[in-house]
Amino acid sequence: MHAIIIREPGGPEVLTWTEVPDPEPRPGEVIVDVAASAVNRADLLQRAGGYPPPAGASPYPGLECSGTISALGEGVTGWRVGDRVCALLAGGGYAEKVAVPVEQLLPVPIDLTEAAGLPEVACTVWSNLVPVGRLRAGETVLIHGGGSGIGTFAIQFAKALGARVITTARRTKHAALIALGADQVIDYTDEDFVEAMIGKADVILDIQGASYLDRNLQALAPNGRLVIIGMQGGRRTELDLGKLMAKRASVAVTALRSRPPEEKAQIVQGVRDEVWPLLESGAIRPVVDRTVPMDQAAHAHEIVAQNLHIGKVLLVVGQ
Amino acid sequence: MHAIIIREPGGPEVLTWTEVPDPEPRPGEVIVDVAASAVNRADLLQRAGGYPPPAGASPYPGLECSGTISALGEGVTGWRVGDRVCALLAGGGYAEKVAVPVEQLLPVPIDLTEAAGLPEVACTVWSNLVPVGRLRAGETVLIHGGGSGIGTFAIQFAKALGARVITTARRTKHAALIALGADQVIDYTDEDFVEAMIGKADVILDIQGASYLDRNLQALAPNGRLVIIGMQGGRRTELDLGKLMAKRASVAVTALRSRPPEEKAQIVQGVRDEVWPLLESGAIRPVVDRTVPMDQAAHAHEIVAQNLHIGKVLLVVGQ
Repeated sequence: MHAIIIREPGGPEVLTWTEVPDPEPRPGEVIVDVAASAVNRADLLQRAGGYPPPAGASPYPGLECSGTISALGEGVTGWRVGDRVCALLAGGGYAEKVAVPVEQLLPVPIDLTEAAGLPEVACTVWSNLVPVGRLRAGETVLIHGGGSGIGTFAIQFAKALGARVITTARRTKHAALIALGADQVIDYTDEDFVEAMIGKADVILDIQGASYLDRNLQALAPNGRLVIIGMQGGRRTELDLGKLMAKRASVAVTALRSRPPEEKAQIVQGVRDEVWPLLESGAIRPVVDRTVPMDQAAHAHEIVAQNLHIGKVLLVVGQ
Repeated sequence: MHAIIIREPGGPEVLTWTEVPDPEPRPGEVIVDVAASAVNRADLLQRAGGYPPPAGASPYPGLECSGTISALGEGVTGWRVGDRVCALLAGGGYAEKVAVPVEQLLPVPIDLTEAAGLPEVACTVWSNLVPVGRLRAGETVLIHGGGSGIGTFAIQFAKALGARVITTARRTKHAALIALGADQVIDYTDEDFVEAMIGKADVILDIQGASYLDRNLQALAPNGRLVIIGMQGGRRTELDLGKLMAKRASVAVTALRSRPPEEKAQIVQGVRDEVWPLLESGAIRPVVDRTVPMDQAAHAHEIVAQNLHIGKVLLVVGQ
C-alpha cells in the first residue's frame, strides 16, 4: 500500500506519499481500506517532531479515518468485511490501509468521505463536555476556537445538549458559526473575551493553555469547569488557587491520543450512544472545509497552519 | 443569651464570652438552643481577621453546632420544638442560641454533644469526595492531615466507600488513624509522601494548596483528581499544565462556607442520604479529641493551633 511518511522532523515538505508494507490485523483488529482521513493539529506537531506516537502505534500520521472493512483479525465479531466504518486511531490514518482495534470503530450513517473527520472531534468533544466538563442543559459554555473541527462540532453538540453557546473566532468565521447554533461569537483578534464573559461560563473548552489560564478563570462562573485540551499558548504559568477557591472551580487537562485502549473504547461507546443519534437525526453534521488528495498532504498541512479554514480538512485516497 | 465575640482581630485572648441579643428566626429558620459547637481551623483565621463571615451571616464564630430546636420561624414544616438536631452554619455556633435555615439541619442519631462536630466534616468530606472527587470503590485516596476532624472523618468515609486509604499525619497519630481504617499512614515530618505515592492516588484531598501542588500532581494516578480544600501552604505557585495533561488530571479548589444556601441544602441532603446511614449503622463515628467549656473558647483555639489533637475539639455550653 501507500502511506504518507514523515521523512524527518520538519515542515510540510517532509510528508511523502510512499510505498510501504501492508498492515496485518492483530487479534481483535480489522483492516480498513481507507476512503479518507483528516488533518488534526496534532499531526502538524507530530510532523515537526514534537508529538511522538504512543508505543505500539503506527509511525504514519493520521488520528482518524473512514473506509471499508477488508479483513478481520482473530476473534473479531460484530463487524463484517464490506462494512462502512469510521475509526479513532492512535496513528496511521494517512494511508491506504490501517489496522484498527474493533473498540475504536463506529458505523457510518452519513457520506463515507465526510465521516473521516468525525471520530476525533466527536470523541474529544463528547468526552470533554460530558464526563469531564459535566455540561448540563441551561448552562453556558465558552468554546475557544469555534471555527476549528473541534469547535464546529462542539458548538453543535453543546447546543443539542441545551446549553447556551459562546465561542471565539476570527470575524470572517462568525456567520458560519452562528449558522451552526452559536448564540454569540467573540472576535478574539480585537475583543477581550473576558469582558463579555466575566463570571458567566459554567464550562470552558480551551485550546490555549497557559496564555489563557488567568483570563479563563475570570470568565468562569461559580462552580465552573475549565477543560483544557490544547496548549497552543504554552504550558507553564502562575496559578492563584485562591481564584479557583473563590469560585469553587476546577481545571482539567486532557488528551485523547495517550489514553489506554480501554478508555478509548469507553469513549467510543459513549459517542455511539449519545452523539451518533444526533448525527443520524441531522441535529449535528460534520463541517468539512475542503477535501485534498492524500498524496498532497503537505498542502493540506499548509492550509490548516494558516487557520483560515472552518471545520475539517480531509485527505482523500485515490482522488 | 451569651456568645463568644471577637473583640478585635488577634490571638485567642480576643475571644470573649459576652451577653448579646437573642437571635430571631427569619422565615424558614429555626432557633437551636446550642448544646455544643466545634472549633474549625477557619474559626482561627476568622479570629485573626483573615476570613470575614459572608454577607448576612452571624458575626460570632462557629460553623456547626448541635442542640435542641426551641422555636420555629414562619413556614417551617418537618421539624418540631424539642427535636435534637445538628446544623451546618454560616457562623454563630459559639453561642447559646443560633438561627438556622431548615435546609441546614440534620437529625441526631448519636450522642447530642458529639454530634456538634459532624456537620462541617460530613458536608466537607462528602461533597469533596463524592460530587467533586468522584471517588469510587477500589480506587486509592490520599488524605492529607489525617488526624484533623476532616481527616478522621474522611478516612472512615472513604473506607466505607470501598477505597484504599492512605493518609499523612505525625507519627504520634498513626495508631489512631490505622484503627479508623487507614491502610497506610505517612509521617510527613520525616517522609516524602511522593516517594510512597508516585502515580498512585486516584483522588487527593489536600489542605496545603500551593506548597504541595507540584508534589500532589506527581502523586496523582492517570485520570487523578486533586481536590484542594485548604491553602495552609499558600495560594500562588507555578503550574505546569503539561503535567496535568500527561495524566489527564484535574485540580478542583472548593470551600463550603461561601456556597449559596441552595448549594448547602443540596449538600446537606446528600449527607443525609449517603452519610447518615453509615453513622446510624456505626460504620462511621465522630472522633472527639476533647470537650472544652464554651466560655473557654480561647483555650480551645490554643489546642487546635498546636495541632496535637486527633479529631474534633468541641465547645460545650453550660459545662
